[in-house]
Parts: sequence; C-alpha cells; structure tokens
Amino acid sequence: MRTDVHVCQMRTPADVSEIAKLFDAGTIDPADVVAVVGKSEGTGLGRDVGRETADLAIRTLLAQRTGCSPAEIADRVCIVLSGGSPGVITPHVALFTRTADPAPKPGSGSPRLVVGLSHSEEILPEEVGRMGQISKVRSAVSAAMEDAGLTDPADVHLVLVKAPSLTAESIADANSRGHETVTRDVSIGAEGAICYSNDGSALGVALALGEADDYQVHDSMVRRDWSVFSDVAMTSSGGEKTHAEVLLLGNSTDSSSPLRIGHRSMRTIIDASAVSGALESAGIGAGCDVSETSKSVVYALAKMIMPETAELDGRRITMLDDQVGYHVAKAMGGFLLASQTGHTTVFVSGGERNSHQGPPNGNPLAVIVRATE
Amino acid sequence: MRTDVHVCQMRTPADVSEIAKLFDAGTIDPADVVAVVGKSEGTGLGRDVGRETADLAIRTLLAQRTGCSPAEIADRVCIVLSGGSPGVITPHVALFTRTADPAPKPGSGSPRLVVGLSHSEEILPEEVGRMGQISKVRSAVSAAMEDAGLTDPADVHLVLVKAPSLTAESIADANSRGHETVTRDVSIGAEGAICYSNDGSALGVALALGEADDYQVHDSMVRRDWSVFSDVAMTSSGGEKTHAEVLLLGNSTDSSSPLRIGHRSMRTIIDASAVSGALESAGIGAGCDVSETSKSVVYALAKMIMPETAELDGRRITMLDDQVGYHVAKAMGGFLLASQTGHTTVFVSGGERNSHQGPPNGNPLAVIVRATE
Amino acid sequence: MRTDVHVCQMRTPADVSEIAKLFDAGTIDPADVVAVVGKSEGTGLGRDVGRETADLAIRTLLAQRTGCSPAEIADRVCIVLSGGSPGVITPHVALFTRTADPAPKPGSGSPRLVVGLSHSEEILPEEVGRMGQISKVRSAVSAAMEDAGLTDPADVHLVLVKAPSLTAESIADANSRGHETVTRDVSIGAEGAICYSNDGSALGVALALGEADDYQVHDSMVRRDWSVFSDVAMTSSGGEKTHAEVLLLGNSTDSSSPLRIGHRSMRTIIDASAVSGALESAGIGAGCDVSETSKSVVYALAKMIMPETAELDGRRITMLDDQVGYHVAKAMGGFLLASQTGHTTVFVSGGERNSHQGPPNGNPLAVIVRATE
Amino acid sequence: MRTDVHVCQMRTPADVSEIAKLFDAGTIDPADVVAVVGKSEGTGLGRDVGRETADLAIRTLLAQRTGCSPAEIADRVCIVLSGGSPGVITPHVALFTRTADPAPKPGSGSPRLVVGLSHSEEILPEEVGRMGQISKVRSAVSAAMEDAGLTDPADVHLVLVKAPSLTAESIADANSRGHETVTRDVSIGAEGAICYSNDGSALGVALALGEADDYQVHDSMVRRDWSVFSDVAMTSSGGEKTHAEVLLLGNSTDSSSPLRIGHRSMRTIIDASAVSGALESAGIGAGCDVSETSKSVVYALAKMIMPETAELDGRRITMLDDQVGYHVAKAMGGFLLASQTGHTTVFVSGGERNSHQGPPNGNPLAVIVRATE
Repeated sequence: MRTDVHVCQMRTPADVSEIAKLFDAGTIDPADVVAVVGKSEGTGLGRDVGRETADLAIRTLLAQRTGCSPAEIADRVCIVLSGGSPGVITPHVALFTRTADPAPKPGSGSPRLVVGLSHSEEILPEEVGRMGQISKVRSAVSAAMEDAGLTDPADVHLVLVKAPSLTAESIADANSRGHETVTRDVSIGAEGAICYSNDGSALGVALALGEADDYQVHDSMVRRDWSVFSDVAMTSSGGEKTHAEVLLLGNSTDSSSPLRIGHRSMRTIIDASAVSGALESAGIGAGCDVSETSKSVVYALAKMIMPETAELDGRRITMLDDQVGYHVAKAMGGFLLASQTGHTTVFVSGGERNSHQGPPNGNPLAVIVRATE
Repeated sequence: MRTDVHVCQMRTPADVSEIAKLFDAGTIDPADVVAVVGKSEGTGLGRDVGRETADLAIRTLLAQRTGCSPAEIADRVCIVLSGGSPGVITPHVALFTRTADPAPKPGSGSPRLVVGLSHSEEILPEEVGRMGQISKVRSAVSAAMEDAGLTDPADVHLVLVKAPSLTAESIADANSRGHETVTRDVSIGAEGAICYSNDGSALGVALALGEADDYQVHDSMVRRDWSVFSDVAMTSSGGEKTHAEVLLLGNSTDSSSPLRIGHRSMRTIIDASAVSGALESAGIGAGCDVSETSKSVVYALAKMIMPETAELDGRRITMLDDQVGYHVAKAMGGFLLASQTGHTTVFVSGGERNSHQGPPNGNPLAVIVRATE
Repeated sequence: MRTDVHVCQMRTPADVSEIAKLFDAGTIDPADVVAVVGKSEGTGLGRDVGRETADLAIRTLLAQRTGCSPAEIADRVCIVLSGGSPGVITPHVALFTRTADPAPKPGSGSPRLVVGLSHSEEILPEEVGRMGQISKVRSAVSAAMEDAGLTDPADVHLVLVKAPSLTAESIADANSRGHETVTRDVSIGAEGAICYSNDGSALGVALALGEADDYQVHDSMVRRDWSVFSDVAMTSSGGEKTHAEVLLLGNSTDSSSPLRIGHRSMRTIIDASAVSGALESAGIGAGCDVSETSKSVVYALAKMIMPETAELDGRRITMLDDQVGYHVAKAMGGFLLASQTGHTTVFVSGGERNSHQGPPNGNPLAVIVRATE
Repeated sequence: MRTDVHVCQMRTPADVSEIAKLFDAGTIDPADVVAVVGKSEGTGLGRDVGRETADLAIRTLLAQRTGCSPAEIADRVCIVLSGGSPGVITPHVALFTRTADPAPKPGSGSPRLVVGLSHSEEILPEEVGRMGQISKVRSAVSAAMEDAGLTDPADVHLVLVKAPSLTAESIADANSRGHETVTRDVSIGAEGAICYSNDGSALGVALALGEADDYQVHDSMVRRDWSVFSDVAMTSSGGEKTHAEVLLLGNSTDSSSPLRIGHRSMRTIIDASAVSGALESAGIGAGCDVSETSKSVVYALAKMIMPETAELDGRRITMLDDQVGYHVAKAMGGFLLASQTGHTTVFVSGGERNSHQGPPNGNPLAVIVRATE
C-alpha cells in the first residue's frame, strides 16, 4: 500500500477547486481518499458557518466524484476540519490517500508513512469522558494500528480521534435512562463536555499505545491527573457524532510511500524546539534555514492547548483571561509551524485549557516530510 | 556614561512593586531613569484603561521617588507603553538608565549600548503625516544621536518615536486657522491619523539616518510609496501630544555599558530568522538552543505590522479580515520573541496595516544583549 | 398592482425551506418576487461567510424556481441582505411580491403599499461619495417612484439603495485614468468608502424627494454637513457593484395591497417613540399593548447609526470606543423593534458613525402593517 | 430614617469628582453612604481593569472622606459595581444614603424607600451553590429586612446580594478538608461557580421572602428546576469574598424618604412592558411619554440573563451562540431602561444563562422614583 498526502488551499470557505483539479488531472483517484484534514475559514467557535460550509462542499465533491451517497462518504472518509484560520494559517485541506501498489517494489528497508482508520463501537452519552469512552477508543486505536499494518506503538506518530460530545438532547436521553453524564456543560469550558470527550479519547490512545498503564486510568482521574497523557493524540469531538473515528499515522518499512512522519511534543507553550525535534524524528536533520526545511516538509500539525497556570518560568501571562485566547493560541501555533517550516497550510486546533493530549502544559506536534532515503 | 536596562514584570495593571524594589535596594537611582518602555495589560485598543492605569502608576512612582512633579517627569523621562499583552507576553516595563561613570574605565574598544533622547519642535495638526512632521522628527533624531554621542548612523539600531496624532479638536483647530489635515479619520485605520503620524515619524527617522534621500520623501508619497522606509524605526502616536519624543538606541565604543544592541528586520510576517539576525548583529552567535540564548538576552523589541496583501508565498491568509487581527499580530510577535529568546517580557506593538517602519510587508526587530567581550 | 410581503425565518444560514414552502403551496409565484430584504446569521463584518452563504442559497432557489439564470435574478430581483443577527433578531428574509390584479377592485380610497424598483446608470469609482453618484442615484429614485406609480414624495416612506463602494482594484482603476477617489480607505471607518457611498446614496434620495435643495448638496458637504439628510433612506454598498439598485416603498390609493407603510425617524439613538410614530404614520393607533400591535405589524425596518458624539443629554456613553459597537448598535435596534412590535424578524442594519440617513444623531425607521380600512 | 439616592456619572474609569462635589457641597455626608451601586467602564469580563480601577477610586475617596480605613469601608458600605457599560449605558454610581431625621415628620402614610443591609455568616467553598449558602443568605436577607424596618415581604422590591464564588485556591482548600465543591469550573459558564453562587443567593432570597417553600429548595434543584425563583433578587459573586453582603430595598410608611421603589420582572427577554409595570408598582402612572417619565425616575435596575432556549415565540435567535452575547444582553437591557425612562445612568448586569433570578427566561427589573404623594 502507498500512502500519500496532497495539500490544497481553499480561496473561499466553500472553494474545492484545487481538490477538483487533482481529481481532474488524475493525480488522485477520488476513491483513494481515506481522510481529509484541514483548517476552514470562520470564527472557530462552536457554531461556525465557515466550517459547516467547507465541510459540506468537501463532502459534496467527494460524493459526486466517487458516486457514493453522502452517508457512504461519512462512513468511508475520516474528515477532520478544524474551524478558524487565525493569523498566518491558510484555509486548506490535506487529502490522505491510500493506494494499492500494482507492482509493489521491494521494501527499501526505510520506514515510510502508513495510515490506519477505524470506528469505535457506539459511545453512549453517559460514557463520554469516562471509562466507557476510553475503552472503546482504546479498542478502535488498536484496530487502526492493525489497519495500518503496525504492531509496535513506537511506530505510531499521530492519532487523530473525533468522538461524540454531549448535547442538551443527549444529556436528557441519558437522564431518561437513569444515568448522569460526566457534566451538564456542553461547552469547551474547563468542565465542558468537549474537553471531557477530547480527554477521554486521548486517554484511550494512551492506553492503546502503552503510554499509560491500566491502573493509572479511571473515571476520577480524567481532567484531574495531568501526569497521564498521550504524546501523539490530537482529539476533537462533536455533538452530532455517535461513534469515535480514528485516523492513525505512523511509519512502516512495508510502506512504499514517499513520505515519513515524525513527532515531538512542545514542553511548554513557547517550546519552538519541538519542530526541529519532530523533523529529526522524521529523519530530517533540521538546520536553522527555513527555505531548505520548507522543501522537505509536506504537512505539519499541532494542538495548541491553554496551559493550566498563567505563568511561564515565573512570569505571568494573561491569555487565560483573554476572551479570544483560544483564537490567539491557534494563531501562535500557526505562526510557529509556518515560521519554522515555511508552510502556511498547517493544521492547528485548540481551545481546551489543559488536556491529556501532550504533556502537562505542553502540546502534541507532528510533521510529515518527503523521505530522502 | 553607562547605560543599563532593568526589566520588571507587573503582576497587576498598576503594579510597580518590582520597580520600587530596585529603587529601594539602590540598584537604580530613580533620577537616572531616562526612559520606560513596556507592555501593559488591557485591551490594546485606542481607549485602554489598563494602559492608562499602568502609565499613571509608573509616573506617580517616578514623581514620588525623584521629588519631581508629574510634568517634570513627562519632560525628563520618555515613557512608551504599548497596550495589550496578548498570548505569551508578560505585562512589564524595561527601565533605561543613564549614569555618569564616576571613574570611567578606559574604553574596551568594544561597542556598547548608548541611549539618546530628544524632543522635537511643536508639531501642528496640519503638519501631521506631512513634511512638517517629517522634518521636525528628522531634526529631533539628529539631536538624539548627538545626545547619545553617536555620529555614524550605522551605529543606530533602534529609534522609538512618540508623536502627536489628530483628534476631533485638533482637526477643528487646524480648520479654524484655514488648514486641512492629512485625514479626518482619527483612528488607526488605513487612512487614519495614527498611521499617518507613525509613518511621518518613520520617514523622519529614515531621512535623519540616511536610509532615504531628500528627493524620495514628500507629502504625496506618505503611506503610498512603501519602498522608502526605516529599518530601525518603531513609532507610535497619541492625540494628547504636541511634540514628538525620540528615544534612540545604539552602540558606541565610548560606552561603559555591559550591554549591546543589534537589529534585523523581518522580511515577511513569518520571518523568524530576524531574531538570529538581530542576535548576530549584537555580536551573539545564535545557535538553536534557546536556553543558552536566554542567558544573553536582556530585552527584545519588535513591531508587528499587518502586511499589505493577504498572501504569503501565493497562499491566502485571513488576518486582514480578522476583527482582532491587530491583537493576533501582537501575539504572534510575542510568541516569536519569547520562543526564540526564552523571555516573555518582550515589547511588541502594532496595529497598522503596512508602514514605513521596516521593509514592505516586513517589521523592525531589535535585541539588547549582555556583551561578552 | 398588488404588493405583498411574506416573512420567512431561516433556521440555518442557508435554510430557504420556508421560502420553498410558500412557492410549493402556491402562496407566492416565484416570478412575482421583486425584492428580498433580510438579516443573515454571521459576523456582520465586511467578510461574512454567513451572509454569502444565505445570499447564494436564496439566489439559487429563485433561479431554480423561475427558470432564470443567476445573472437574470440579479437583474430582476433587488436583494438586500444585511449581515449579522445579534441579540434578539431572527435570521430571516422578507419577500416583496408584485402581482397584477386580474380583476382590479375599485380603489378603496385608502392608501396602500406600492413598491418601485430601478437601477442607476453605472457609477464610476471616482464618482463614489461625490455628485456623480448623488445625481445618478437621484435619477434612479425618481425612476423608482414612477415605477411605483407615485408622484408625491410625501407618499414615499422608505428607499433602500445598494450602491458601489470602493475596492483596492477600483481605486487603482480610477487612478490609472487620472482620477483620485474620495478616499483610499475601503472600510466602514469614519473616512471609509462604505460610508461615503452610503451617504452619496442618501443625498441622492434627499434630492429626489425634495428633502434637500440643490444648492445644499455638493462634493465638500458629504459627510460634513449633517443638517442635510433624508428621513426615509436606508442605504448600503458593496465593492462588487457597478450600479446602484433602488427599492422604493410607499402608499398609493391605486394599490390593492392589504398593507400600508409608515415611517418616523428616531431623533436620538434611544428614541423609542419613533416606533409608535411610524405606526401612527401607517394609520395604526399605537397603544402600549404589544400583543395587539403585533397582530397588525408585518415587517419593521431601521438603521442604527452610531451618533457623532458620545453624549446623550449630557451623559457620556462609551459605544464609540467599543470594538463591537456596530454589533451592539444593531442588537439595540433589533431589541427596540422586537420589544415594540412583538416580532423578532426585523431588519436592522448599521455600522456607520453618523450619516445623511436620518437626522443628525438619529436613524430612519419604518413599519409595514396590515391596513384595517 | 431617610433614605436617598444620588446618581453620579464617571467621565473616566477612576473619575469620582461628581461624588466628591456632593461631599464638598454638603449635599451628602460621607458617613451616611451605606451602599454604592453602579456600572463601570471596561470589558465586563472576569478580569476587568476598568471595574477594579473604579472600585479602588470609590473606596479610596470614601476612606479619605470618612476617616475610615479601607477595611472599615468594606465593612460598612455595600459596593456593587458591575463591569462594562455597553451601548447607551453611562458609567456611573448611585450612592444610597441613610440619614437619621433630626425632627421626624409625622408619617405621610405613603410608602417610601427604605434600605436594609446585612452580612451573612462565612460561606465555605463547599457550601457555594448548595443549601449551605442558601440558608446563610436566607438568614442574611431576613436580617436586612429587619435592618430596613420591614416585616411584610410584599414591601421588598429589590435584594442585591454579593456572595463568594469559587477559585482554584478555594476548591483546593475544600478538597484538602475532604469536601468536593459543587463544580470545578470557576467561570460564568453553564456549570460555572459564578452561576451556582448567584443562584444560591437567589434561592436564599426566595426562601426569606416566601417566594419559595422549604420543600422546593434543595441541593439537587439548584440550576435545574427553574420554576423556583425570586422575582426581586439581583445577585453577583466574586472569588475574593468570604461572606455574602445583602442590600435590600423596599417601601415603608415609616420612611421619610422622598423616593419610592417598584418592580416587575420581564417575562421574556423582549418584555418591555416590565418598565411600565415597575413604574406602576412604584405608584407612577406610566404614559408613553418618556420626557414626563424621565422627571420622576431616579434610578432603574435590571438583570439581563440569557434565556435557556434560543427561541422567542417560535422564532430562532442566535445570541446563545454569540461570543459577546453577555455584552449584547447588557446593552439591550441598558437600551430598554434608557429608552423607557430617559436615563442612561442605569444598572444592568448579566452574563448568566438562565437563573433563579426572575422567572424562567425572564429577568428582574426595578425602578426608584420620586414619590408624588
């Protein structure tokens, strides 16, 4: 199998012309698209017309070109659109394709990009942010590893998960069946369902990859014990979902992809060294010359999570009190990736305050590069 | 003369306790303070209670400790507070002191930090953003060079200017004397008085330092011909001012300061290499190791000006349509300086869209370091 | 001719299902729709994905149902969508239809709603905000009166105009032909092209309706002499337009419409009595009982323009310094109309600071009611 | 006892000159001030430099003029400053004074304004938003009634309560003593401590005044069963407080005040009739003529709470998805009071989504007027 990544900018919220061009030119077979990851133009808030508009345009194009119904597309393609492109982030999508090699070349022995996908079992509202979700995501991550042909967790460099969040309706549903949900706050606030779901998914990844031990993970530590975390999980959630979707990226010597992925998380919110660390992890000796780096990098991704405490090295920062702090955080992450890789078509999501995604006060970060050997 | 810089964080908008401690401990003689530069906590908008609060607290402390009246402080100390500390910027001030060396050591031959101050002649409303302002700022910059003991413009690395902007009242005053002002828009918009004044000051710096020739600078090129600019000007303006204040920083072999300043402007809004360039300009071989760099750096400053066009290398960015784009721009500049120098007490102002400060679509940036030889 | 108004809420930005239902049920013949006025969901800023999405959905539906091309729709139907529905405003559209009465009843002698439409001649960039635009809009308003069958300006209660604004491109075009434009600021700022265009249109209305005399209107009084204004103009502008479109509403005893329109402008930004004034002007004796009024009112419209000075009756207000002041102003206008008429599907646009629309510091306001005699 | 109210606008965030003038002129004896209620200029968010600045200026002035320490002022004077003055609200304070009548006139028999104050017992973090807080506020309200000389709850028209909210520190403190707090979210979000505290106080008021029965109020109904509420409670909370402060306003025939208070809550967020209802409750026959009403009204107060559901009479509104919805809500409340009373110096706080303050989806509202008989 050969995994490839094509990045297309979007010149208006619904602009899918660059994707269509790749289909028209035969560069990509629409049926090979297994995932679409990207940033849309809009507010980046819960209700975001820009993201909804982009999402619809992408699904519609994929349905037209594959002859599938929109429901089949939802089933076959993992679509992770993060709303809002503040600062220097270009609205775009990265198309992940998986193609059967007609005449597979003998392995170069060099690890190359693979992608694995899976769906979890249904996650009930009362399971969100608790062991129910965590266990189901854990199983789904294991399935995605298998789908990618990976057995060693050390070969996994990024796991994107999109899981169910809570809504007023789903909370009422749980209540009607005699269950309390982990929270009644459906927002992305400190005790909000979005954070609980994102962190439930992150802990499921951590368990699946052996980053956490079973005894460390239980209901009462979720969003409490930050020492347990996944270094490769970037998770999101939505009220409309009933299952978790997993998109897992790693490297395998069986892959004939021209690409390779690496990761290294930021230790603090200003830890720019994570980019060179991730490049090294992907086998690229990072110099300080961005124009060189730019040629190797295909795509870069990061989460930008608010730190728990408003201090960096004893110095107070004010972003926790900033009404648009989530927007600023994404913009800073975009600036980091753009200024260090030379690409503005980068994926940066965020909004949570602290998380089991990445180390305490830190953030997961990954890069996909053209492999040189 | 010995020039020094002390950076004090402010834990609340009006917190001047770290400054007071430096006075109490005798580290700084209040009478030696010639300039206060910093970032305050607040909205960063035109009316910014946080900035006003910080400004008042600083002036009050200086007046108390020097026995001067507030009016005398305004006359003797150049105070440049930029409002809003988005992202990872710590609210703070940097105190610039100038002390007579009781027993001046023989020059090390090594260039060290010097500071020069001056006031321009009165600038009339009808002169703002036109040759009237430009000429008066030019003369004031020359006077500040002299005050700093500098004769070669190549030794000047940063010129902060604070000049009069327009108000409804000052426009009416000009009209009553038969004059039209350069604009009737008092805002920081594309045709706003704040931009015209900031750019009038920047062109005055450019002329004084020989960065521009006389024939290139005239009324009709202001905010039109971006090819003319100063690489070392960071300017601001306020409706309450009647004169321009100049704070000029450079290096001189006559200085016994332990510090040195360097600069290099950003060529694009994602040009992170400007920091290493500025460090080299200050004589510090910049590696990629921030923890080492952090020990050398005392203070870093940048402007973050919106680019003219919403494209970077053919890729569209959306910050020109972002209502809080100015806030995001400052946060990105703060992130750049903090992530590359290891300090969050950094100065980043901005808000304009394009400017004669720095090259077209670029931004001035400077660092003050501890000199090692 | 019979003029009617149908109000449809939109449950998502692109939801046109209520309009489609009116077509499906035969309540409205799509070919009879002459104007669509409404509020969309979104940011209400210059770039507003929500407004663009709604606009496209409406045009697409009209094209489908009439068999016209989108270009023909643009030509035949006047679409005035104002972005952003803050506060209690329901996203919606009001469809204005004009139907030939197959067997016209003899006039009741009672004045009833009529609608008139027209396009101006092309307005060049250098004409925007100047006599060029003003004269062309004036002619177009006269043509719309004729189209409505009205001869007495006193019978005109509302004139919506949508005219060309300036863009970087159109300014460059004017420059290339040797012309300077009225401003280089394309924003809605104090000296922005949107304000100049909106006010050029308002002065054209004032001249056409005899609210202003020729000697009072000239280039140098635009956005200067606020004593000249139209009491019935609500104007907007867009960079994409080349001509002004006029939608004129009034009453005629020749009309067999069941509706009537009335207006009275707000004298200050808190003048709630304008609603009862407008109801009286429409022949409805306004009591204080909203539930009664609610049955009579079909649609209500207002502009909410920022006052010139930040004082009301000697008391300071802060909305001129509020970054989201435009948003707040619209919300207050929506609250006024909703709380006084009982309808949340109301049209409130705004954003300018002072204007020739409505009296100095005041705002135009109109209501369409079911006529009882 | 004679209770009076003096309203002073503030021209800058720290401007207390109008208050000082009342002291200087002898109009008010500083020692008679028992409460200060008002709106400050600023962001209206949790951290609000403008509110902190105003608060400090007021306390400092009161301390200077009474010779008390700031701690004594905090003990003697109930200060309720609500941050942010969006729209048409003038930043101001209303000073409530209580003076012993040297020669009390015989009662007119007419009910006049009285004020009562009290402090609750200490409220522990684990009691916030639970019966602990509710019971202690209930007792404090009864004490305030006694202080005001009132025995009949029907004579109470407004109860302002300021109670402790939670902070990271106070939650940790409760945990260290083996207690869980009602929430870990310290924000004003749906499950935030500010809402729990505000509603704990409101339910305490409801119990004290007999608006709710004991059996209806228990831990698990707080922020769940909206059918239980107080019609006269306007509550707020802050992390810095350890006790609740109560300011109770009512009418008594024993009072020699020239003023009277009335109230009527808004039934929906657009229920403008509450103002005329409150005026009638205060004995003023409300006509539709604001200029007449304006002469009678001294002060008006309202809460503007977000409704639970985003529909008004079947029509969708978008304010629940609006990032600045709290700001817009306050602006709409200010517009209502200003447009109906003719005063812009009005008190409107808000920010919660649904509350036990006022009926479900409604809001408490009160007016203080000059009594005419």
